Parts: sequence; C-alpha cells; structure tokens
Amino acid sequence: MSRVWNFSAGPAAIPSVVLERAQRELLDWNGSGASVMELSHRGKLFIGLAQQAEADLRELLGVPDDYAVLFLQGGATQHFAQIPMNLAGDGDSADYIVNGHWGEKAASEAAPYVRVNIAASSKSDQYLRLPPRESWQLDPRAAYVHYTPNETIHGVEYHEIPDVGDVPLVADFSSNILSEPLNVSRFGLIYAGAQKNIGPSGLVVMIVRRDLLQRVSRPMAKIFRYAEQAANDSMLNTPNTWGWYLAGLTFQWLKDQGGLAAMAERNRAKAELLYQAIDGSGGYYRNPVQVSARSRMNVPFTLHDSALDAAFLKESEAAGLLALKGHKALGGMRASLYNAVPLEAVQALVSFMKDFAVRHG
Amino acid sequence: MSRVWNFSAGPAAIPSVVLERAQRELLDWNGSGASVMELSHRGKLFIGLAQQAEADLRELLGVPDDYAVLFLQGGATQHFAQIPMNLAGDGDSADYIVNGHWGEKAASEAAPYVRVNIAASSKSDQYLRLPPRESWQLDPRAAYVHYTPNETIHGVEYHEIPDVGDVPLVADFSSNILSEPLNVSRFGLIYAGAQKNIGPSGLVVMIVRRDLLQRVSRPMAKIFRYAEQAANDSMLNTPNTWGWYLAGLTFQWLKDQGGLAAMAERNRAKAELLYQAIDGSGGYYRNPVQVSARSRMNVPFTLHDSALDAAFLKESEAAGLLALKGHKALGGMRASLYNAVPLEAVQALVSFMKDFAVRHG
Repeated sequence: MSRVWNFSAGPAAIPSVVLERAQRELLDWNGSGASVMELSHRGKLFIGLAQQAEADLRELLGVPDDYAVLFLQGGATQHFAQIPMNLAGDGDSADYIVNGHWGEKAASEAAPYVRVNIAASSKSDQYLRLPPRESWQLDPRAAYVHYTPNETIHGVEYHEIPDVGDVPLVADFSSNILSEPLNVSRFGLIYAGAQKNIGPSGLVVMIVRRDLLQRVSRPMAKIFRYAEQAANDSMLNTPNTWGWYLAGLTFQWLKDQGGLAAMAERNRAKAELLYQAIDGSGGYYRNPVQVSARSRMNVPFTLHDSALDAAFLKESEAAGLLALKGHKALGGMRASLYNAVPLEAVQALVSFMKDFAVRHG
Repeated sequence: MSRVWNFSAGPAAIPSVVLERAQRELLDWNGSGASVMELSHRGKLFIGLAQQAEADLRELLGVPDDYAVLFLQGGATQHFAQIPMNLAGDGDSADYIVNGHWGEKAASEAAPYVRVNIAASSKSDQYLRLPPRESWQLDPRAAYVHYTPNETIHGVEYHEIPDVGDVPLVADFSSNILSEPLNVSRFGLIYAGAQKNIGPSGLVVMIVRRDLLQRVSRPMAKIFRYAEQAANDSMLNTPNTWGWYLAGLTFQWLKDQGGLAAMAERNRAKAELLYQAIDGSGGYYRNPVQVSARSRMNVPFTLHDSALDAAFLKESEAAGLLALKGHKALGGMRASLYNAVPLEAVQALVSFMKDFAVRHG
C-alpha cells in the first residue's frame, strides 16, 4: 500500500521526508557504521545530535536564555504529576483551568501533590466552549496556573495566551506546540508529549524558566527532579535517543518549511478549508464547538445521521484517509491536522466528504 | 561505512536483521500505509503487535500466568524509585544488595520511599567480587530484597539466583535479561531497561507477580501505579510504541535463533573466547574481576601499559570495532557482548587484540 493521509490524533503523522531520511540512515547513521539507536547517548556523535536539536528548537520558538529545554520521558501524563512535585511545596495550592479531558486528567494526577483549585471549568458546557479569562477565579498565591491551550478530544483551542499576572503559567502544549509562533516568555513552563507535532511517542519536550527549577520541594528521587535533568542536559539517565533524533529531524524540517510563521499560515488554511466544508454542508456535517473556540489542530464533526458513520469510516479508509473515527466521548468523526498533515490531505478529505454527501444523500 | 562490530554498553547493538526489517517497513507498516510510529496505540493493528510481543516474551522466558508483563517508560532509574513507591508501605524497609554502580544508584533513588537496608555490599572490594549469599544480612520482614544480577560497569554477574526465602526478590536485569533461560517464578519483580538486550532506549520491560500489585501503598498519581498499568495493558497513557515494536521484533529474532537456551550457549562461547584471550595474553591484557564473578555480558579489561590505551582505541575503531572505551570508573577497555553481538564480532576483537599486542610489543 502507498502512504495514506493520516488524520490520527496521536501517535500521529510524521513528515514523509523525515521518515525517508530516518529510513535511509537506519543502519548506518552519520558514518558511524551503526544505527543512531545503537550509540551511546554520552558519545560525541549523539551529544552533537542532542545539542543541534535543542538549538533548532530554541531558534524555532525563540526560547529565551533563561529557559531550560529538556527532553524527557513518561508522556504528558507523567508530568501532570511531576510538575506539582517540582513546582509546589508543602501546603501549596495551584490553579487549574479545566477546558477538556486532558485538563481534567492533569488536575486529577496533580491532586496527590498539591491542593488543586479548579479556577475555571467548561465541563457544564460539555467542553464545547472555553471558560473565558474573565471567569477564572485565580489565587494570586497559587504555585502556578495550569491550562491546556488545545484539547484534542473536544477540539477547542485558546487563540490567545491568558494573562495570569505574576503567577507562573504552565501549559500542556502536547497537541499544538510548534503549530504557530509562541511567545515563550509569557510562560513559566511549557510541556508537550512528542507524538502529535514533534515525533514518535515516548518523548516529552519541556521548556521551563530556570528560576522555577530552584523551588525547594518535597523529598523525592533525583530522577523526578527537573533541576537534576537540567543540570545533566536531560541525561541523568539514558534518554529516548530515537525520539530525540526524530524530534531533531522534525525541527530541521520545520526550519526548511520556513519556520513557525509559515506553519501557522498553512495550519490556518488547512483548518479553514475543513471548517468551511463542514459549515457549508447545509447541516450534513456539523462541528459542535463554539466558533471562536475552534481548534486548528483537531476538528471533531458529526454526520447528520449517525447511521452513516460506519459507511463514512469504511469508505474514507478505502479512499486512503486514515483514522477519522471520533473519540468515544463525542462520537462521530475527528480529523487531526497537525503540522505533518499537508494541505493536500485536507483537500482530499474535503473532496471525499462532498462526494460522500452526494452519494449518500 | 559498512556496519561495524558494536561493543557499546548501552544503548547497544540491535540485531541487523531486526534493523533491516524496521527499515523496510518504516514508511508503511503491516499494510497500513503509515509508519508504526504514526498509528494510534489503541488501534487494532498496534494492539495486535503489543499482544504478540508480550506473548513472545512470555514464551521465551516461560513467564507464569500469575505474573503481569508491563512495557513502561522512564528507564531502570525511574523504577529504582517507583518500585519502593509501589511495593513498600509507610515505615517499611527493604534489603539492598549493592554489588556495583547500579545497585548503589537503586538504593539511593529508593531512599526517599523506603527505609533502605544495605544487606550486603562489595564496595570495599571495589565491586570486583560479589557479596556471597552467606554474607547477606537479610531482614525477614523486609518489603523486598533488591539486587543487580549483572553490573555493566564492573563486569560482575551472579550466576545463580539467590535464595531469599519468602521475601519477594526484585532484580534489575537491564544488562542480562534474555541472555539465558530464567526461572521467573523465583522472583517477585524483574525489570530491565531495553537498551542493552531488548531494543532501543526509552522502554522498560517489567515482569511482576500479580499479588505484589495489590500491596496497599502511599498516595500517588495513577501513572506511577504498576497496578493501574497492569489493569490497562501498559496503556494508561501513550506508551513508547516504537520501542515496543522493536522489542517485539527482537523477541521474534530470539525465537528464530532457537530461544534462550541457544542464546545462553552463544553467550557463553563469546565470553569464554574473550576471557581466554585476556587470560592467555601473558599479562598484556588483564581483567580485574574474581573469576567466579565474571560477567558474560560486560568484559572490562586493561592493557599492561595504560599509555597504549589511546592507540588501542584509535586502531580498534579503524578496524571497525566500536565503543571499546572502558567506563571512567575502571579506565581501560570494556567489551559488551549482549545478545545482538555475534560470535564473529568477538572473534574479530580477539584477533585484533592479539595483533595489537604483537605490533605494540
């Protein structure tokens, strides 16, 4: 089978040119006579790769010098717990903005380590709207404010960085990191599981203001301390070297594409095309999300008659459109339009949708 | 450059046929039209892969049904901490046998979570001998006994499973798992970072007796609970899918090689060849480890004159023998002879060593 258009929510599409390069050099990387997976992370060759990846990420996002960049393991979920372990002390509270499934999980995994204050939630709106900044009940003494700029299941996205004053803003950017330029200096800590916009699963990229690493925190193993990882260039133990390598190739690919401003334009065009097809279908397709809160990355939509869902999935797959099944929480369909999904893929999807509507009346 | 013989201590050699297969199907796995890295871990295809990998591992090691098999992240180091978090309750102690660098680290990362009792240590022997079982000061009320069957830096290996009575035996098998048949039922918990005998870094394989998962333990995030991972087939969050895939290919390769009895024979032959070359060199090369404690996996050796080290490393690399530099703790050289290192590689090394000794007198 040839390559399909992949709309998976994650693990998700990786740029074909990145995969082709990884394929070419899989058995002999960089003239070493070995795979990149077979080399010591402490050897000169891998250290060079690791530093280049960090430098490219810093360049792409304009990461200020007073921020550390970490390449970690455990998925965003582990860091739901590790963040309060590192940033909150005994008796501290933290404010959580819950605007979808992942925000809910972040709050519940944090609860053993910090007093969680749900400062805002859109649960009563089934997460189809965003709690507006004015409604957030923030505590100026909170250890940090946590939110999820983009929620993959509900398909909602904050299009502006909320102002939370002097309290460090912590954001789970798993599903929209690198999709547009970002003012990193507005954040205390940014983290992202790699498997949506960066590379394969099993890698977490974190950008954290260095002063936050100095917070005195609870007794715990060194391996859980971000300060230790920062002091050891993310090599306190053996990192996920393959993930780091593919992340680096993806950063280079992003630079070749013109950087994040160019990606933002492409991502906007992709999302617009799909939302227009949905909104212009006369109700055949529907997106349930408040228009101003719509995500550029994840577009859930339903068919006017859910009895057609099975046919839609079967025919779309046969047409080379992969992983359009919606999350069980919302039903229907979902198309994820991360960086590695090209405009052509969305064009193919939209054209299929129009055709499907005609054929199935 | 063509493929070299890779003696890296880890990340280490992966069987060439495994890499070649991964290369062939990197852009289109199993007829999906996508890379295995681009597929949802919850999709039918990946679930099939995950189950097959577990079944093959169970078959290779003869894992009894009352043991769970987990595919986790974080490296062995993270589990140095997570094991006491899961197996020890408030006020419990655990016995640690410290027979090298990794055992030391396991004890120190455990200390925030359990009263660590160093029941035996060979530190005063510079870890070049093993604390004999008779010397272990075990506490029958300990939550568990932890030891490191093979130490990669010092090149020592226990060749028999110690009897510790009814206390669960916990073993860090990172560097010798799957190198020979193992009676899993003698253990409470076995764990191993993948990057030596299993696959790429970023994956940990754990085999744990199910009753131990029921121990009531401290408050912590779900993501750290082995019981939760077991209940969710290691997919409480997105696992390292690439690592799981390569582990599965390696398990299939091991079965094709004749299983662990065949591997044990090959590994014995490889180690014997190298130790004989060292011992038979008339003192030109030396291995400092007590003979009965010598590791089959990691063979540290020194040259009679350390002024020759640089030449040895330079010439061996030019001869296609990679990563022979010893750990800084011992200096000199180290050859790691994991499963994926074939006998030919050791023959090439031994032949180089003889030749080097002649040329450099």
